Amino acid sequence: MSGLNNDNEGNGDNEEFVVTPWEVRGKIDYDMLVERFGTQRVDDSLLGMIESRVGELHLQLRRGIVYSHRDFDLILKRFDEGEKFALYTGRGPSGGVHLGHMLPWFFTKWLQDNFDADLYFQMTDDEKFLFNPDLTLEDTQKFSLDNALDVMAVGLNPKKTFIMIDTRCSRTLYNLGIKFSKHVTFSTAKAVFGFKNSDNIGMIFFPTIQAMPCFLPSLVEGKNVPVLIPASIDQDPYWRVTRDVAPKIGFYKPSQLHGKLLPGLSASGKMSASQPETAIFTKDSPEEARKKIWRAFTGGRVTIEEQRKYGANPDICAVFAYYYFLFEEDDEALKERERRCKTGDLLCGDCKNDLIERIVKFLREHQKKREKMKDILDQVLIDDSFFDSRIKSAAERGFPDG
Amino acid sequence: MSGLNNDNEGNGDNEEFVVTPWEVRGKIDYDMLVERFGTQRVDDSLLGMIESRVGELHLQLRRGIVYSHRDFDLILKRFDEGEKFALYTGRGPSGGVHLGHMLPWFFTKWLQDNFDADLYFQMTDDEKFLFNPDLTLEDTQKFSLDNALDVMAVGLNPKKTFIMIDTRCSRTLYNLGIKFSKHVTFSTAKAVFGFKNSDNIGMIFFPTIQAMPCFLPSLVEGKNVPVLIPASIDQDPYWRVTRDVAPKIGFYKPSQLHGKLLPGLSASGKMSASQPETAIFTKDSPEEARKKIWRAFTGGRVTIEEQRKYGANPDICAVFAYYYFLFEEDDEALKERERRCKTGDLLCGDCKNDLIERIVKFLREHQKKREKMKDILDQVLIDDSFFDSRIKSAAERGFPDG
Repeated sequence: MSGLNNDNEGNGDNEEFVVTPWEVRGKIDYDMLVERFGTQRVDDSLLGMIESRVGELHLQLRRGIVYSHRDFDLILKRFDEGEKFALYTGRGPSGGVHLGHMLPWFFTKWLQDNFDADLYFQMTDDEKFLFNPDLTLEDTQKFSLDNALDVMAVGLNPKKTFIMIDTRCSRTLYNLGIKFSKHVTFSTAKAVFGFKNSDNIGMIFFPTIQAMPCFLPSLVEGKNVPVLIPASIDQDPYWRVTRDVAPKIGFYKPSQLHGKLLPGLSASGKMSASQPETAIFTKDSPEEARKKIWRAFTGGRVTIEEQRKYGANPDICAVFAYYYFLFEEDDEALKERERRCKTGDLLCGDCKNDLIERIVKFLREHQKKREKMKDILDQVLIDDSFFDSRIKSAAERGFPDG
Repeated sequence: MSGLNNDNEGNGDNEEFVVTPWEVRGKIDYDMLVERFGTQRVDDSLLGMIESRVGELHLQLRRGIVYSHRDFDLILKRFDEGEKFALYTGRGPSGGVHLGHMLPWFFTKWLQDNFDADLYFQMTDDEKFLFNPDLTLEDTQKFSLDNALDVMAVGLNPKKTFIMIDTRCSRTLYNLGIKFSKHVTFSTAKAVFGFKNSDNIGMIFFPTIQAMPCFLPSLVEGKNVPVLIPASIDQDPYWRVTRDVAPKIGFYKPSQLHGKLLPGLSASGKMSASQPETAIFTKDSPEEARKKIWRAFTGGRVTIEEQRKYGANPDICAVFAYYYFLFEEDDEALKERERRCKTGDLLCGDCKNDLIERIVKFLREHQKKREKMKDILDQVLIDDSFFDSRIKSAAERGFPDG
């Protein structure tokens, strides 16, 4: 399956591309990102280490979708020595959830299940308010509650999942945050995040808030807890700064597993909420989903005759990418689909119809689960009082001492 | 008494001086500050307006110590129309309290008593931690509790005084704060506060936190409440930014009454905690206070004979300044002391001994009151839960709507 070279992957030339926490543009060269960000490859040796512990590999690991990391080997080493890790991932609640947002959550659930890990899930309602001139804080708070239903519908363990909407936890976040921000100069923030003088001072402080869940599990447990962040690679700048500061304030550096971004349904770019026609949202009706898939960019030929004769190109096909990333669990079946595509045996119309069927089935089930999650939301949403009681007792046990 | 030209007042030349919230250096030209900061003079007409309402003028108003303002006339106009104002002042808890810190608090008590005003008193433990490399957050939190005793010992009404230690209220401060900071660019913060690229991102965000008590009374009351800030003029940069942003987020601009800084006991500069020998601290023993006054800089002559013959100069005398700012309530008695000084009738030793007696008496009484305040501290210290209950009910009454 190494042949997949979808439209978000580099093609060897040096076209400009931008990957920051706030902007993803151009054809992403994921190999180049590993060098640019200074991360490590998820290689066969690391995959072997995971498989030997879990007994299997998640689709996103098998297919190189989760392809880069920082110190995940250290996480496994500590795990073997009896130090359980906590998971941390999150969502910027600026609107509805689409499949691109959910991609890392499916993988996070797999990690939670297989490593019996607590998950701290951050909803950055403050960030989305500060960075988006058109959103009010009330908007982003409303989206937070809505999006939390999608998060939980993935099947996360409600007893081990803690959803933090930032503005409900901001005493905890700010009070620990200032200890962190004391070690981050404007120069550093500017260099890493590209802040401009015209950016507002809330934005400039915000990386502090996003760093905090890397340390909160340690405060809650009253001892240093390793933290693993499964997230798309565009979030990496946050963790570079966080890893620099962590030892200065007495914590472990957080580790990361970086995923690729789910391609959009158009010819280029990731799935994006700002281009709704290129993304499948969790609340889309079957009809909306059908229309979007039907209009998707494929690797097909101009005429059926040509396609029967020369075959199509799955490497640039948005529809094939959806099978690859999400909707074909079976590696053999995926290979077979690729073969039939390339030989002209499978036509785009049929392939799209198959996908529509699978996506509509997924949406129907997800939408039902989403509704059910309303009953458990109160159980998983935490606020300052959660930390007040736990951090106090951690302090009594003597951590942190700084 | 217009003749007082103590060592903190300009002498007409253009010597360099610096007045920022974090640094006061050189001979302060208070007239020039009015121009530099763009504030208004407290003139006879304004004094008349105050006197006609209160029936008297506080020493600091009579003597031009509180000498500058922004929109205090508007505060009085609204007061006449039935809109009561709230007071807001504060303290950066970086160590013990000295008389220079207390100067605005005495005046604040007078305002509270005479205008029946709620007082929000902010203890910026976060600021002092962020701006001082040598202080831990635990240090500044400890100082906050200690300093609060000095604040209350001034005689503030515990039923109308709300002391906010920032880290106890940081959910409230942050959640309202981000609405404010969205309107403050790094350019603005840099221009107003002189931030450098090497400053940390907590410092850069901090002006947000200091602005919040200007708006919190409105949230608590569920309607726009005028806020008056009695404080030393070095804090003015905060209010310039706050006044710009206030209408953009639906609040009144806060008004200010600016005070001069209490001179130190040495030849130049304000009383400063970083030069403890130049300041009388509230915890000083009688012996420590005696020594400091005894060594104070005066306007005396080199010999007793010369002084008897030519008189001394109260305008440059630190000892006379203490009578002027704090320890001689009676204007006639102050004039008489000035006359006797200038004519050589009163020698510095006698004048110092008088002051020592008054200061020692003050310290003894203050230290007793301070102890008693431990019993009411819980009553005046507020935290996020105070705002949670009140702001919620304000929201039910429909304010703010933005």
